[in-house]
Amino acid sequence: MALKTVDEYRERVSRLRPRFFIGGKRVEKLNDHPVSRSVIDATARVYELTMDPKYSDIMTAKSQFTGETISRSLYIHQNSQDLQRRLDMARMNSQKLGTCNYRCPGNEMLPGLAATTWEMDKEKGTDYHKRFNEYLKYAQKEDLVVSGSVTDTKGDRSKRPLDQDPDSYVHVVERKSDGIVVCGAKQHSTGAYTADENLILPGLSCEKGEEDYALAFVVPNGAEGITYIGQYNPYSVEREYSKNLQYMGNPIYGQRETSLIVFDHVFVPWERVFMCGEIDYTQRFISRFAKTHRMNCGGACKVGFMDLIIGATQLIAEYHGISKKSHIVQKITRMIQLNNTCLACAVSAAYMGNEEPPGSGVFMPDDAMSNLSKLNTNESFWEVLALAGDIAGGVAVTMPSEMDLENPEIGKYVSKYLKSAVPAKKRMRMLKFLQNWVAGLHGVGTYQGAGPSQNEMLVLYRITNLEEKKKMAEELANTYY
Amino acid sequence: MALKTVDEYRERVSRLRPRFFIGGKRVEKLNDHPVSRSVIDATARVYELTMDPKYSDIMTAKSQFTGETISRSLYIHQNSQDLQRRLDMARMNSQKLGTCNYRCPGNEMLPGLAATTWEMDKEKGTDYHKRFNEYLKYAQKEDLVVSGSVTDTKGDRSKRPLDQDPDSYVHVVERKSDGIVVCGAKQHSTGAYTADENLILPGLSCEKGEEDYALAFVVPNGAEGITYIGQYNPYSVEREYSKNLQYMGNPIYGQRETSLIVFDHVFVPWERVFMCGEIDYTQRFISRFAKTHRMNCGGACKVGFMDLIIGATQLIAEYHGISKKSHIVQKITRMIQLNNTCLACAVSAAYMGNEEPPGSGVFMPDDAMSNLSKLNTNESFWEVLALAGDIAGGVAVTMPSEMDLENPEIGKYVSKYLKSAVPAKKRMRMLKFLQNWVAGLHGVGTYQGAGPSQNEMLVLYRITNLEEKKKMAEELANTYY
Amino acid sequence: MALKTVDEYRERVSRLRPRFFIGGKRVEKLNDHPVSRSVIDATARVYELTMDPKYSDIMTAKSQFTGETISRSLYIHQNSQDLQRRLDMARMNSQKLGTCNYRCPGNEMLPGLAATTWEMDKEKGTDYHKRFNEYLKYAQKEDLVVSGSVTDTKGDRSKRPLDQDPDSYVHVVERKSDGIVVCGAKQHSTGAYTADENLILPGLSCEKGEEDYALAFVVPNGAEGITYIGQYNPYSVEREYSKNLQYMGNPIYGQRETSLIVFDHVFVPWERVFMCGEIDYTQRFISRFAKTHRMNCGGACKVGFMDLIIGATQLIAEYHGISKKSHIVQKITRMIQLNNTCLACAVSAAYMGNEEPPGSGVFMPDDAMSNLSKLNTNESFWEVLALAGDIAGGVAVTMPSEMDLENPEIGKYVSKYLKSAVPAKKRMRMLKFLQNWVAGLHGVGTYQGAGPSQNEMLVLYRITNLEEKKKMAEELANTYY
Amino acid sequence: MALKTVDEYRERVSRLRPRFFIGGKRVEKLNDHPVSRSVIDATARVYELTMDPKYSDIMTAKSQFTGETISRSLYIHQNSQDLQRRLDMARMNSQKLGTCNYRCPGNEMLPGLAATTWEMDKEKGTDYHKRFNEYLKYAQKEDLVVSGSVTDTKGDRSKRPLDQDPDSYVHVVERKSDGIVVCGAKQHSTGAYTADENLILPGLSCEKGEEDYALAFVVPNGAEGITYIGQYNPYSVEREYSKNLQYMGNPIYGQRETSLIVFDHVFVPWERVFMCGEIDYTQRFISRFAKTHRMNCGGACKVGFMDLIIGATQLIAEYHGISKKSHIVQKITRMIQLNNTCLACAVSAAYMGNEEPPGSGVFMPDDAMSNLSKLNTNESFWEVLALAGDIAGGVAVTMPSEMDLENPEIGKYVSKYLKSAVPAKKRMRMLKFLQNWVAGLHGVGTYQGAGPSQNEMLVLYRITNLEEKKKMAEELANTYY
Repeated sequence: MALKTVDEYRERVSRLRPRFFIGGKRVEKLNDHPVSRSVIDATARVYELTMDPKYSDIMTAKSQFTGETISRSLYIHQNSQDLQRRLDMARMNSQKLGTCNYRCPGNEMLPGLAATTWEMDKEKGTDYHKRFNEYLKYAQKEDLVVSGSVTDTKGDRSKRPLDQDPDSYVHVVERKSDGIVVCGAKQHSTGAYTADENLILPGLSCEKGEEDYALAFVVPNGAEGITYIGQYNPYSVEREYSKNLQYMGNPIYGQRETSLIVFDHVFVPWERVFMCGEIDYTQRFISRFAKTHRMNCGGACKVGFMDLIIGATQLIAEYHGISKKSHIVQKITRMIQLNNTCLACAVSAAYMGNEEPPGSGVFMPDDAMSNLSKLNTNESFWEVLALAGDIAGGVAVTMPSEMDLENPEIGKYVSKYLKSAVPAKKRMRMLKFLQNWVAGLHGVGTYQGAGPSQNEMLVLYRITNLEEKKKMAEELANTYY
Repeated sequence: MALKTVDEYRERVSRLRPRFFIGGKRVEKLNDHPVSRSVIDATARVYELTMDPKYSDIMTAKSQFTGETISRSLYIHQNSQDLQRRLDMARMNSQKLGTCNYRCPGNEMLPGLAATTWEMDKEKGTDYHKRFNEYLKYAQKEDLVVSGSVTDTKGDRSKRPLDQDPDSYVHVVERKSDGIVVCGAKQHSTGAYTADENLILPGLSCEKGEEDYALAFVVPNGAEGITYIGQYNPYSVEREYSKNLQYMGNPIYGQRETSLIVFDHVFVPWERVFMCGEIDYTQRFISRFAKTHRMNCGGACKVGFMDLIIGATQLIAEYHGISKKSHIVQKITRMIQLNNTCLACAVSAAYMGNEEPPGSGVFMPDDAMSNLSKLNTNESFWEVLALAGDIAGGVAVTMPSEMDLENPEIGKYVSKYLKSAVPAKKRMRMLKFLQNWVAGLHGVGTYQGAGPSQNEMLVLYRITNLEEKKKMAEELANTYY
Repeated sequence: MALKTVDEYRERVSRLRPRFFIGGKRVEKLNDHPVSRSVIDATARVYELTMDPKYSDIMTAKSQFTGETISRSLYIHQNSQDLQRRLDMARMNSQKLGTCNYRCPGNEMLPGLAATTWEMDKEKGTDYHKRFNEYLKYAQKEDLVVSGSVTDTKGDRSKRPLDQDPDSYVHVVERKSDGIVVCGAKQHSTGAYTADENLILPGLSCEKGEEDYALAFVVPNGAEGITYIGQYNPYSVEREYSKNLQYMGNPIYGQRETSLIVFDHVFVPWERVFMCGEIDYTQRFISRFAKTHRMNCGGACKVGFMDLIIGATQLIAEYHGISKKSHIVQKITRMIQLNNTCLACAVSAAYMGNEEPPGSGVFMPDDAMSNLSKLNTNESFWEVLALAGDIAGGVAVTMPSEMDLENPEIGKYVSKYLKSAVPAKKRMRMLKFLQNWVAGLHGVGTYQGAGPSQNEMLVLYRITNLEEKKKMAEELANTYY
Repeated sequence: MALKTVDEYRERVSRLRPRFFIGGKRVEKLNDHPVSRSVIDATARVYELTMDPKYSDIMTAKSQFTGETISRSLYIHQNSQDLQRRLDMARMNSQKLGTCNYRCPGNEMLPGLAATTWEMDKEKGTDYHKRFNEYLKYAQKEDLVVSGSVTDTKGDRSKRPLDQDPDSYVHVVERKSDGIVVCGAKQHSTGAYTADENLILPGLSCEKGEEDYALAFVVPNGAEGITYIGQYNPYSVEREYSKNLQYMGNPIYGQRETSLIVFDHVFVPWERVFMCGEIDYTQRFISRFAKTHRMNCGGACKVGFMDLIIGATQLIAEYHGISKKSHIVQKITRMIQLNNTCLACAVSAAYMGNEEPPGSGVFMPDDAMSNLSKLNTNESFWEVLALAGDIAGGVAVTMPSEMDLENPEIGKYVSKYLKSAVPAKKRMRMLKFLQNWVAGLHGVGTYQGAGPSQNEMLVLYRITNLEEKKKMAEELANTYY
């Protein structure tokens, strides 16, 4: 069995010394800062769940190389049922963590890498696939956390990379005999600074002349030349200055923590380069990553979040004594409708999945359904938040702190006036948990993570066979006369 | 092979002499009236498709009794893949007909009947299941069209049947040694007057004292005491008085034709009675029928209709020279999104289906997903119609008739002023086809067929495990302290 | 007083002999055909309302020329209160007729004509305004019905008029000493064939070279060379073949009847030409007409329709015994919300109206609010229809005919099984009335009449002062540092 | 002129010593804490705007008592134009502050108090109106900030006050010769701790036996027995620990700050009591306050916020180089549509306002339109946030801090990789400003402030004349036969 224990993971991460900044300050040890600690704690929980026999069907799989039991996070789907299990894992992790599980995006890149490197080797005689397989064996054996990053910083998006600061997109600045040197930065990198390895995919469908940008590779956390700059929003501040984690909305695991990864002349040895210059394949990399990502992170993961939000909202309605009111029942039902609709799209994406490309042995979710999974989630998640905020009431944002409850002078007031059908503390914690959703980063985060709606709309239009539908209509309308 | 040819069907139906009225007049022969003829033609087309080797996977199955090839319309699903095939059939029939295939509702009652009669026999020692199996063998052998009806006329819905005209719901008025005598009426009966047999299910979840209403049975078309009164709306009138079918929006197959079936002391022999008095089972009958019906008729069937509407709308946009405009592309994509979302729910309902009750050998779609399939279709279909009407333009309702085009005096004007990027005739036919959708019965029909939204909302709320979601939220919010 | 009685109107219209075709047949006398008769009856009702002292505030005004009492349909708004009265008239007419009042579109062109001809005379030294005033005096004195038409047939909309059949847009083909000769056709012309006069405005914002298309004029009904081809949809057929008007959904007044007006070398004397060649003014004509039209026909008129639909839906809910159910109350309230929102936009358009151009004495609704009025109505009306259909139930489209109720053989069944908390006849009439809305032309008609959503979106974006909003944000975000 | 300068205000507020807690700590001087300071700064800005001659039409009015120029915040509307000016003030304050102006809720209670005390005096011979007028004269003369609070803490909302902790609603615990003693607490009190006076209205429509709860009064800030507990969410923490206000999303004025006001045996002299025991009038108080509040705070205020959000979103789109993309234009237009719709409802509420009760001299907005104004704003504001987040991109929540930009080690990276078409600093400030909206308290705050949707739905249903609409439909459908 190639699974590592949670202690092994914690020990390993405690030895990492990335160049990591947050809130304008350098953080020496990742465990020192409450924000990076929340990422470690979330990841650690995933290691626990993976070892839990109750969840082994969902959390583990058999390595295609060795037959050994490995984390599903390092597995390549080989059939439709694998895809189904994969989305079950995404949903369950979300239910258990209320935030990113930090092993997800990297994992979602693996099938696309396997498929596209296989294709390149076959069509162009490269040896990317061989390298990739070697790397994957290593990662499986060590049960590594592999983060995945794709979004370049882009600068002025009306311009191509070569028409502006060339570092606006990650690219090769030097090719050497033993490897390449890379510059640029990836934003929105989820959990990169606590991962063992950072996997990088191209974020741009490259055109002729942009060969330096057609680039996929992996580097160890903290490789020479890498700087991580953590996101920093009010929730980051709240956690940084918190006297007691219990005062937070998601006490242990926090919000979803990303960073900007800056590559300042970073060297990558050839055996860790999985594409370099093959512009014709960038779109396939992106599209294969996207469809896997949109089924899981875009869809099933958020279904898990919505499960939590629905549960919390129902509890607050009960705490407030209004859960039987017909308009509350109607709204809770609407939340259920939205949540299940997102689930249905992800399930269909798995069920209707296919081997792609044929012969590669790699299974991909159905293109239309995976994009739809993400597209519907954008709209649904936002509406679910609105409904949660509607039911919870203004107190979700105007509430005092649990510190007020503990203050000897005013604790009695808070206790008296914040109680409802349940004691103040219980109610305040659930409200604070909901605050984390309805007034936090998850609304925008969910809209954007795995790509905003317009991306999925473009794909849906492009892949739909309108000719077929036109023919059906013509036949019935008899325009052939 | 137990399949009948389209000619055998046509010959059989030409011999039927139901007591059928439409538009205030008695119709002696079903082929005499253009409305009933459209139902026959649609049904005949289904017989053709069933015999077409290209579609045999979808349209046929193996009888569980004889192993013979039978129409899937008379088949009981035995696994999840059967459910998938069933929804493929629903979608394809809709694509080919643009209206009801008239073998659907009856078929959707069969699994519920199989399951619930099996359960009653097991639990109450009745012999309903045996009777049902005998009947089903007969229907399969003769390849019969079996209509299905469930909705009572209800009178004042704030009252139970016994608190008003007792005939407001179909019920037994006399029990005899050889059978029962039945009164009442079922509305919205799709294709009943051209079917070989009319299958009747209870439309009411019966309470104690309402034993006479807990009733399921089948009778041959035109049994003594039955009167069919056809629906009659502007589209019925248009067809009735049409000089040429080509002037219609769905020339051959027309709109969905239903009728009111009146039972005025109709005798049903015991061997055709599948429930009589078992009030505890009415809810199960309804729920099992509903979940099958909502996946197919509620979901997949309308996906087929939306395929047609999208195709027609895209064509009109092309005819008008606006199909590349960004707002048109955006709207077509939205239609695709809605259509695929409905499909995803139906597919998930099939994929997540289960044997119900265990041991019965009958497969049912997932309860949540099948209800969702219908619920989302209600909203989506209406929006798809709005978008189709938006894109097609006012001419979809203000257009002249093809008769004007053929008129020697003004034909040249119509030809000149109704042409666009295509000739007037081609455009007018496609507009007329769209008129049939955007200004016809399908909007309301789709909302109501298989039950209005509130029904599905109630089921969704009832079957969702809110306790589980609450527990997840409590764990993360740490209200256990 | 310059008002004519309803009898005078009826007498006048009975003398008209336009070249009118419908359903492929020539109609010699307008009163002969049930469709054209419904237009006459609706118009006649407006004459009655105008004479009714109860409504004189709303229906009449004082002529700016003579001070005499005239129909508000022939009045030019001179202040914000006039605009308010105008929308009150639009709403009330809709409430009383359930269809077009047929004096509306022409009226909505008058202020734009007054303003723009005034402007042209002032800026270009033409005498259009003088001609227009003479014409308006005449129309006021005779209390004429003036129809208004704007939408050309357009052919292939990706092409300008000169790049395709030049008759795709109405244009001058010859300029003579005493007048002009005109070719082309206008579609969607509401009530044109029963009006006294047909007012024609350009439907295209003309560019250089398209001077022949910059054209506004008025011609008497049935002028030499004009042919009217009536719209013909299932509702037209139903009325044509109806044995008794009471069997219709809107018995007397029917659906909104439009026609295609074909101009085949029609001569227009110069005194009836209000623009000819002034391409720079076509956009102003369109925009001024549009803003008046979108407040009234686009907004207030449909508020009146929605009043009717809400009333009918509430009645059906009561007839069915479900009006107190919480989900029904919620849906009725939603309908009220939508209806009042459309009203609010129209009211604001009137309230925020301005003299345009300054000095002209003509009042125009606020541009943003009038466009919004129409834009919101498109979406709201469609949703109101959906809710009406949801509450009414499938019987709104599957119902039998009142002829079945009167049939001696089956009348007893219809009477028994269509009754609810009220007798069958009452219920059937109200359902038939709703059918006219939820399964008729009004959904698409309302979306398109006064221009589809994209038109209003374009105007809204164009006229909004985004710079001002940007500055506000910059000030607070302190990007000036 | 009875206006005070901003310095006079600042001097006055610096002398206040309320018992104020926030984040578990007592704050001695209001200027000491960055959160309370932001409230003072926002209020001070309103004093500045009031003195600015440019805005005197909007910000000032003439006292009905003295004819002197006073702040419109202390004025009672006397006609429809006053209402219009009032909403102009609400909108402009929001545009200038990006948060509450803190003089609004108190002001919105004044007309309801004037009207209802007038009515009570007239009908019950009390002298509440006289007291109220005396108080108002005083407030006008001193140009006081009067906060307004209405929402009780409610405890278990399924129970009336007397069935649970009686302090769940503010009530009288003792009546004395010179005044009353009050217990309970009001939540969501906006700007109460920096106001001069706290005005308290009943939050419950009282029934017989609940006379002690039918209570309206005003007390000076920091009266004996009052404790203020400030809201405390991540944005409060961010401000508390901020090293530089410029790093905040709304640097000076912050988010909307409310508090829980606890009344622990607070004495109120009779001359400051405006109702005590008149249960029949509580509903009128609430309804009159609500309709004024829903037009302004519910409607116009949020229109001002949406102006800011639209401006900021358009800027970010320009910064990112995507503002001309058709889907961005479409979305910006949708935001404009929503914003103007909310404005239209508020404008109509003012325009259709009425004297209420007749003879009182007090003008109230139209009931339906003011409720609609709030109801539409709930839905619109949430959608505007979603669109802003969609356009701004994930960086709105994942962005680093301006402290990172100033850090000597990594500033160059942030500067390089956060720039777009504009420098990093400019872009980061605008993103941070948007973050304040799309990931902050305003989504829920706007939904709940002035009452959640269900409240407005209930009012709309109750006040709509359905009988009238039913009659219209019956007339046309001819159910009278």
